[in-house]
Amino acid sequence: MIKVGIAGYGVIGQRLADGVMLQEDMELIGVADLSPTLSVQALHERGMPYDLYLVDGADQAAFDAKGIPVSGIFADLLGKVDVMLDAAPGGVGIQNKALYEKAGVKAVFQGGEKNDIADVFFHGYANYEDGLGADYLKLTSCNTTGLIRSVDCLDKALGGVTRVAITIIRRVADPGDYHRGLTNALQMDKAPSHQAEDLMTIMPHIEATGILVHTPVTHGHIITVLASGKDGKKITKEEALKAFHAHDRIRVVRLEDGFLGNASLFRYARDLGNPRGDMYEIAIWEDSIVESGNDIMYAINIPQEAVTIPETLDAVRAAMHMQPDSASATGKTNEYLNMGLWKK
Amino acid sequence: MIKVGIAGYGVIGQRLADGVMLQEDMELIGVADLSPTLSVQALHERGMPYDLYLVDGADQAAFDAKGIPVSGIFADLLGKVDVMLDAAPGGVGIQNKALYEKAGVKAVFQGGEKNDIADVFFHGYANYEDGLGADYLKLTSCNTTGLIRSVDCLDKALGGVTRVAITIIRRVADPGDYHRGLTNALQMDKAPSHQAEDLMTIMPHIEATGILVHTPVTHGHIITVLASGKDGKKITKEEALKAFHAHDRIRVVRLEDGFLGNASLFRYARDLGNPRGDMYEIAIWEDSIVESGNDIMYAINIPQEAVTIPETLDAVRAAMHMQPDSASATGKTNEYLNMGLWKK
Amino acid sequence: MIKVGIAGYGVIGQRLADGVMLQEDMELIGVADLSPTLSVQALHERGMPYDLYLVDGADQAAFDAKGIPVSGIFADLLGKVDVMLDAAPGGVGIQNKALYEKAGVKAVFQGGEKNDIADVFFHGYANYEDGLGADYLKLTSCNTTGLIRSVDCLDKALGGVTRVAITIIRRVADPGDYHRGLTNALQMDKAPSHQAEDLMTIMPHIEATGILVHTPVTHGHIITVLASGKDGKKITKEEALKAFHAHDRIRVVRLEDGFLGNASLFRYARDLGNPRGDMYEIAIWEDSIVESGNDIMYAINIPQEAVTIPETLDAVRAAMHMQPDSASATGKTNEYLNMGLWKK
Amino acid sequence: MIKVGIAGYGVIGQRLADGVMLQEDMELIGVADLSPTLSVQALHERGMPYDLYLVDGADQAAFDAKGIPVSGIFADLLGKVDVMLDAAPGGVGIQNKALYEKAGVKAVFQGGEKNDIADVFFHGYANYEDGLGADYLKLTSCNTTGLIRSVDCLDKALGGVTRVAITIIRRVADPGDYHRGLTNALQMDKAPSHQAEDLMTIMPHIEATGILVHTPVTHGHIITVLASGKDGKKITKEEALKAFHAHDRIRVVRLEDGFLGNASLFRYARDLGNPRGDMYEIAIWEDSIVESGNDIMYAINIPQEAVTIPETLDAVRAAMHMQPDSASATGKTNEYLNMGLWKK
Repeated sequence: MIKVGIAGYGVIGQRLADGVMLQEDMELIGVADLSPTLSVQALHERGMPYDLYLVDGADQAAFDAKGIPVSGIFADLLGKVDVMLDAAPGGVGIQNKALYEKAGVKAVFQGGEKNDIADVFFHGYANYEDGLGADYLKLTSCNTTGLIRSVDCLDKALGGVTRVAITIIRRVADPGDYHRGLTNALQMDKAPSHQAEDLMTIMPHIEATGILVHTPVTHGHIITVLASGKDGKKITKEEALKAFHAHDRIRVVRLEDGFLGNASLFRYARDLGNPRGDMYEIAIWEDSIVESGNDIMYAINIPQEAVTIPETLDAVRAAMHMQPDSASATGKTNEYLNMGLWKK
Repeated sequence: MIKVGIAGYGVIGQRLADGVMLQEDMELIGVADLSPTLSVQALHERGMPYDLYLVDGADQAAFDAKGIPVSGIFADLLGKVDVMLDAAPGGVGIQNKALYEKAGVKAVFQGGEKNDIADVFFHGYANYEDGLGADYLKLTSCNTTGLIRSVDCLDKALGGVTRVAITIIRRVADPGDYHRGLTNALQMDKAPSHQAEDLMTIMPHIEATGILVHTPVTHGHIITVLASGKDGKKITKEEALKAFHAHDRIRVVRLEDGFLGNASLFRYARDLGNPRGDMYEIAIWEDSIVESGNDIMYAINIPQEAVTIPETLDAVRAAMHMQPDSASATGKTNEYLNMGLWKK
Repeated sequence: MIKVGIAGYGVIGQRLADGVMLQEDMELIGVADLSPTLSVQALHERGMPYDLYLVDGADQAAFDAKGIPVSGIFADLLGKVDVMLDAAPGGVGIQNKALYEKAGVKAVFQGGEKNDIADVFFHGYANYEDGLGADYLKLTSCNTTGLIRSVDCLDKALGGVTRVAITIIRRVADPGDYHRGLTNALQMDKAPSHQAEDLMTIMPHIEATGILVHTPVTHGHIITVLASGKDGKKITKEEALKAFHAHDRIRVVRLEDGFLGNASLFRYARDLGNPRGDMYEIAIWEDSIVESGNDIMYAINIPQEAVTIPETLDAVRAAMHMQPDSASATGKTNEYLNMGLWKK
Repeated sequence: MIKVGIAGYGVIGQRLADGVMLQEDMELIGVADLSPTLSVQALHERGMPYDLYLVDGADQAAFDAKGIPVSGIFADLLGKVDVMLDAAPGGVGIQNKALYEKAGVKAVFQGGEKNDIADVFFHGYANYEDGLGADYLKLTSCNTTGLIRSVDCLDKALGGVTRVAITIIRRVADPGDYHRGLTNALQMDKAPSHQAEDLMTIMPHIEATGILVHTPVTHGHIITVLASGKDGKKITKEEALKAFHAHDRIRVVRLEDGFLGNASLFRYARDLGNPRGDMYEIAIWEDSIVESGNDIMYAINIPQEAVTIPETLDAVRAAMHMQPDSASATGKTNEYLNMGLWKK
């Protein structure tokens, strides 16, 4: 059993905890945070299904005032784990890394940190082998994680992808966010988007670029992708659809079934009764796939709160050498998360 | 065991099914719907934890095409149940009532139907006794249900309330709704709001009026209430707060704890891991309570998707004479729904 | 001719400039700002209908780079004017005040500053006489300005108002704002709202309190007001309506005419061809007015970008002793702004 | 002087009236509508700068009740004009066409009608000559009009464009719309978008496809365009930028100047003091332009309320043979609308 700790118990940290709890070959030792946030209060109200530790600088009295039991300090947690999943706010991970090094524990960082925090910039499908035995891995961001799933899927199934041009229609905040938001405005980012550049880091044989536009919604990014095959080879809609259907982390959906947009997918995950209304799969609309010359174009939905959980668990598998290759590692993660079952 | 069926498997119908499943003295026989909606597809993906029946006019072939197993027609369901919970779209309930009468089953209708569909316009706390043994009951709407919880609470604890003036800041759509919505606009309704008028029907000793404004959000109505005590008696903030704290279906929250608005409460329910991210309690902000002369003013959050579930279960208890009075009936419902546990 | 300068050329500053340009007894000497913002770029594209000065700390080179002509520094502007309208960002006004004192010019500050910046906290209708000859006046904020218009109107027409309880449904950002916003969330403020407290400062014979909720829209605050007459005297809908109709800065509107909410009023101002789509009047929905016991309740729309312009011009009239009383001063302002003409 | 009438006085009809009023070689005879809408009430409040006629089926009494003067019926208007600009709701134009044919007047329809309503599907830059002398022309929709401006610009300046792949990030409603809207949701359309297909009708040498996503905002569509040069010729950012800069109906903007998104452009038009806050130009973000292999990618802002006005005026010029070619016709329209002046 690989012993896992989590630093940062926010949107991602909570979901990493859920994901680790489902892995039969991992044990969640505890989570760590700085303040008795709503998420920590909810953990308390749930009866503390796992232990809580305080990171350095936390105010113990604030936890005591709410009656929230604390199991120790950050160093205590680090002393008990093999690997830390770091979901601290962007910029804090680099400070935590020094502690991980000192404690001799491995770590997987989320996308908010700079790439040079880690030995490997990691995606479970696209470069699993690069992460084998690595001490410090960094996950791609939510958009990039989902994007790479789809591009890697086509790349492997259809003889190679050489160019990708994307438009990211980004949800600007998560449900419950009050510290950021847009009201009746679309906002442009300076192009090219970092997601396109990150894709090239993981998949260096592809030329990628793109434009990102922020939109005032909370329920999932939508990305349109134009992909070109190797040597100008045509990619047909039929081929792309078949490849997407075969992927355990991709859900092909249709407008006629009622999947009208990102909010339908959020609702569907809730209708499924999934805890927190989460969905691990990206969705691709069958109705969005069109051919443009020899290129293929399609639209993805990225459930930003939960999408990186599977690939983060893959990263634990790589770092701890639990499985030798992507197929067996992602297979285990998917099995424990029940991904792909719905097709069968 | 009281045998219960549900007509209409949408936002409310699904949650009624969840609620009935938790009642140890009720048995969910099945749910009925017209089309293989997303919610029905999700039921199928979950493995059909309960049976599905088709209402008259349903297209069996559409269900077959998706491989969704059907257990029978509406009449089959009606033949097996003691009471139907009707959560069909507004206006359909009145058609269903004829079928219920013919089948000799009782029914509880949701707030979308006209009041005269039922023998009793019902609220579990405010007029439980009126519903005892009744054949046809109609629940108050989501806003009215939550509003009455708070007003009845003050009314009973503080010697009577005689006047209520409300402002309803209404969420305009549920998460996932594409058939209705507002974009960058507040919309006025003709005053007085029907919620104020409905309150007077249930609590005829109170004079109520109010104004409703629709807002472009999905995560909970907010109502501000100004309440006047009997014979001009002053209601203090301290008294009101104490009464609210003691109520099992009211959650008193504070800005300083991170409950900044309706989206915080939606997030909190998800952080709790509640299925569908639901919350049955209304929330009252401690920071919103202010005295205005002898009157008291406060703000409520209404989680519109789930708030009527407890009172609907109370209505089953009344109709089937399961408990003799409000205290014992609401106590049972609360026990099975785990309401109020979080305070203890 | 009273010589007027404006500090801060943002949402309010631009509209103050428009308003001063329309006053036949005032002369706009110039406006001052720190950076070549979009608004300054627009002034340039319009051909500089009035002069631009740079406040201390401005980077002249940035203006030069865009070819924007500058007429001097802040001290130059102060040397030419009788009175400054200070619409600088909140907190800057207090710094500017020292410069105004040194230059011996009077000033009118907007609502973002603290009350103690000024000798008089001012409203053109409610306390004009207090501002006569004063050196430093501070306007009420947009919500308070509009609220007081309506309350003062009832107070004077109906024999006195003694209690006001409000619910402010606040638009969270202006059109074009990217530095603040909410997405799919309502946000509570700690009660009582400062607007209620500010009302009491201006109208000390009234007890006021209220609750403020932020909403993710840009086109106008909506306030519901419950007002009580003196000595429990009943205020009828008919009386209130008559009083509102007679007020030159209040526009009574009806749902049946198409005024469905704040966005209808924004659209209507644009349909009128008003520059910037501005409206100076608050609107009161006839359909919102309801009686609650002896009290009256109604809903106001506050066009937050332009609503304080008339009262700011009134403040100039008071400070410069241009008219001896509220009736003659507001009459002049209204005449030059063409307010109330639409009724005739 | 060409005599022009307008059918339908809504968002587009009002702006067509403004545009015709500015054309020194056209005369606006009048506008026609069915009901005393807010726009008609605003026309009245403005003092009827042009005459109003009633279309068939209008209720004269409703206009009388509001004191709105009416100059005659639709046939009266048709008897006085050379050409009608039809901005009636989608589907009404085809009924009006029979009246136009009977009256012997030409007509230009807006994009909401089906293409076969007209002899020519028209764009002022891309196929002006096809419209010369035609009786019935139909404009492209707002998105297509702006999109073609940019594609035609590259096509002519850079030796030909052969492929276009677009992502339309569509604003879902206009400011003031209450009859349509989305709340916290992105909505997918079935691909390919009709705008891509319409582009191919006007520019048949180009293969176009694309995906459209609706977003809950009101202030301008954003389209990302990927364009491929003829015979694989590379299009550089520098070339594209130069071509866009030279176009009188394109405004090149930069993030660093404060143009952060569609709401900045809406605000800028208001800051310019433009009546109704309108802008005729599309905007292209310099910061969005990126090269993808030999292709070029960029993002456009489409001010949906006013963007088709110039091309509609071009259509009048074509239909009435006022100018022989696109350059002279668009030049006249631009001159009277003051387009392109801002660059000089």
